[in-house]
Amino acid sequence: MLKDNYSMLMDLYEMTMSMGYFENGYQDTIVYFDMFFRKTPDDGGFAVAAGLAQLIDYMNNLHFTEEDISYLKSVGITNEDFLDYIRHFKFTGDIWAVEEGTPVFPGEPLVVVRAPIIEAQLIETALLVTINHQTLIATKANRMCRAAQDKAIIEFGARRAQGRDGAYMGARAAYIGGCIGTSNLISGRDFDIPVFGTMAHSWIQLFDDELEAFRAYARSYPDKASFLVDTYNTLKSGVPNAIKIFDEEIIPRGFRPLSIRLDSGDLAYLSKEARKLLDAAGYEDVKIMASNSVSELTLQDLRDQDAAIDFYGVGERLITSSSDAVLGGVYKLVALENNGKIEAKIKISENVEKITTPGFKELYRIYDGVNEKALADLITLRGEVIDTDKPLILFDPTYTWKKTKVENFTLKKLLVPIFENGKCVYPGKTIHEIRAYREAEEARLWGGVRRIKNPHRYFVDLSKDLWDLKQDLLTTYARRGR
Amino acid sequence: MLKDNYSMLMDLYEMTMSMGYFENGYQDTIVYFDMFFRKTPDDGGFAVAAGLAQLIDYMNNLHFTEEDISYLKSVGITNEDFLDYIRHFKFTGDIWAVEEGTPVFPGEPLVVVRAPIIEAQLIETALLVTINHQTLIATKANRMCRAAQDKAIIEFGARRAQGRDGAYMGARAAYIGGCIGTSNLISGRDFDIPVFGTMAHSWIQLFDDELEAFRAYARSYPDKASFLVDTYNTLKSGVPNAIKIFDEEIIPRGFRPLSIRLDSGDLAYLSKEARKLLDAAGYEDVKIMASNSVSELTLQDLRDQDAAIDFYGVGERLITSSSDAVLGGVYKLVALENNGKIEAKIKISENVEKITTPGFKELYRIYDGVNEKALADLITLRGEVIDTDKPLILFDPTYTWKKTKVENFTLKKLLVPIFENGKCVYPGKTIHEIRAYREAEEARLWGGVRRIKNPHRYFVDLSKDLWDLKQDLLTTYARRGR
Repeated sequence: MLKDNYSMLMDLYEMTMSMGYFENGYQDTIVYFDMFFRKTPDDGGFAVAAGLAQLIDYMNNLHFTEEDISYLKSVGITNEDFLDYIRHFKFTGDIWAVEEGTPVFPGEPLVVVRAPIIEAQLIETALLVTINHQTLIATKANRMCRAAQDKAIIEFGARRAQGRDGAYMGARAAYIGGCIGTSNLISGRDFDIPVFGTMAHSWIQLFDDELEAFRAYARSYPDKASFLVDTYNTLKSGVPNAIKIFDEEIIPRGFRPLSIRLDSGDLAYLSKEARKLLDAAGYEDVKIMASNSVSELTLQDLRDQDAAIDFYGVGERLITSSSDAVLGGVYKLVALENNGKIEAKIKISENVEKITTPGFKELYRIYDGVNEKALADLITLRGEVIDTDKPLILFDPTYTWKKTKVENFTLKKLLVPIFENGKCVYPGKTIHEIRAYREAEEARLWGGVRRIKNPHRYFVDLSKDLWDLKQDLLTTYARRGR
Repeated sequence: MLKDNYSMLMDLYEMTMSMGYFENGYQDTIVYFDMFFRKTPDDGGFAVAAGLAQLIDYMNNLHFTEEDISYLKSVGITNEDFLDYIRHFKFTGDIWAVEEGTPVFPGEPLVVVRAPIIEAQLIETALLVTINHQTLIATKANRMCRAAQDKAIIEFGARRAQGRDGAYMGARAAYIGGCIGTSNLISGRDFDIPVFGTMAHSWIQLFDDELEAFRAYARSYPDKASFLVDTYNTLKSGVPNAIKIFDEEIIPRGFRPLSIRLDSGDLAYLSKEARKLLDAAGYEDVKIMASNSVSELTLQDLRDQDAAIDFYGVGERLITSSSDAVLGGVYKLVALENNGKIEAKIKISENVEKITTPGFKELYRIYDGVNEKALADLITLRGEVIDTDKPLILFDPTYTWKKTKVENFTLKKLLVPIFENGKCVYPGKTIHEIRAYREAEEARLWGGVRRIKNPHRYFVDLSKDLWDLKQDLLTTYARRGR
């Protein structure tokens, strides 16, 4: 496992403000921050939460070295008492978060932090980059897997990732999202993800001809024959040569060949023709794999055209989520404690969509009591009681006249305790458990929400108390700003 | 400096093929690989090479641990002799590369590797991810800086980067590309990049009102007063409060305030109005900074609208190059040595643009002898001699009838030696030298090539010998594929 110290992955202003909090006597002020995103990537119906395990690693390892202290001095953080505080810094707060693999929606708190203000402020950047990145890639992988339906997808993008961590953690997130594995050994090694691979064109090119290249590979890997067939001419050279070597080198050794791989050309046409050739030669069980920068829309089209592709290797479009390369998660102050009482805070903005929802919150998922499908999510203030024996009235937070009465429902709290008084209290899950949980929770969404294009909007509502609180604060500040 | 061991950042097939090379007796075969990209991001006129320093770090640290060996065994790399070879693996080959900061074009070899085949194959993924990522971000930063013209840009995107390394190395690449600094402390600390920052909305929200928030900040940082003015109402509250605190807390202490920051709303309108207010109060020297996910097109528009913005903080659109989030650099076998003779190799593909240019190459930039502007790049075979005293005939490699005669020119070899026999021979440059070199080389491009939209195409031609070699191989393989 990589163990580098990323404690200093933060923006200067977090440190500057922290010294300011310190000097102005706010050091012990307890604050609440919410991390949430405003828009689902690719206008999809939901996102898949990921990255919590790495956030926990970061929190557990968070500390500053003397080298860091000297550097901070050089950039204007010069208060010696504050630097001494930084020298002995330890996170002492509480964190709640949505578990990895959970389908999540815009405006929902994915992480809630309660801590003395300096501690809450200093973790901002690392928290955001970790959750933003992995949630983005898990979401993209999930979209692609939905588009591919019964065809499996392998994450193949390490070489095109945005940096080494993009490849390393991206493969993890892609597996959570639904990929069956990765090509990337470091992620396979550290996260227990299945690894896959065939051969590159360089293997074929090394040999005088394709046949010789396949033969050499077959001798080294008779039990794993998987040939790249598009180097010269897929149907006239690649597939016939693959079949010849299956016959001459694999079958006589008592094995069955595994697959062929297409990496260029019209994948629908070539796969169907290749399938015919393989079947005619008695290799109905040999799979066809395809790669070549496919997107989820290409995946849908290839399915519509009955491409004979059994699984896909997807590279750059998955590992960078290139069609929508940012999950714009933010981290906002929503409350502070004043003499032990929670005082809600709102952020006003000239851009209405940047206005925050104030207060220390709870996040519920409401399931239909009969078919167990997710009906809506409800954000409440902490401590509000929802009586599951009574009908629940939900209303749209913008168009408040749009109301729904929900009867016979079950509830789940989505935010679970991760840190208490600076100590990690979350037992963690294996990556396989996370992936299975994602699959189960995804199955509880209606098909409309899971649709690739123009998904049905899932409702995320505010409780009456929370909505009232937000309106009160908005009115107060609107008066002040005038 | 982060020192994690990324040696296992590679695709399974590189290791699988390597064991195959080993078992088939190709262990000592010397091969040549080129790394190049096929398309400039955002259809720009050129890219800015970056990432070489980290490639050198990777090469110098490349080794495999017993943990790696056990993992490899578990995924089918089981030949004990080969594993012993891996256990003692050391790169012994040669590498040439284009220096960081160089403007580069599609099809040009940015890195050339000559090494025994297993060594050349195993470094593929790490080489690609390093050069692809940093070149992508340096190129994007450069586009944005060109769009902003005389306005400076600071890289502000760590929280939205694709992973921690995306933030860490992205800030480095952005500085090479033209940003004046970053908000990110870990990159500032390790790469000697200037760091910048103001305050977040959370600072303002902590206090009962904006005035009190500014006052507290001014007391901690009287010499660095820089206020975020959009929390409530930019022109009615933020700017007047900032001016009040300048008057009451900064001037009396003998300092000049630095800046205000806008983070929402119509940046053109608000900046011009804010400028008037500041000027009227005697703060003509106080700068206006703007942020809020600006793209290069917004930067151009704001300039056209005479926005009174002095510098920009640019986040997600820079650090992820979100409008074109992939530099699709590839790494292709171009030659091998057979009894000491170089044998060129070509990769054929059903997709014509995926066909490679064969051979061990040299890359030249041709400058006008009078005005020193770059005229074209020329790719030749190694060892070809170009006589600068004679006119040089260049021709388009696709439309070969398009010819240009170049007279009075100078030449520069763009590929410099990085490793010789496994030893790093490149002295390296400071990041400031790299940035200055980028600036100087960029200034030698014609304005048309530097244009943001519809740039003029810069010519990258092949020498006659190289063009002939490629045609010969194409003809041979076309015959074979039929």
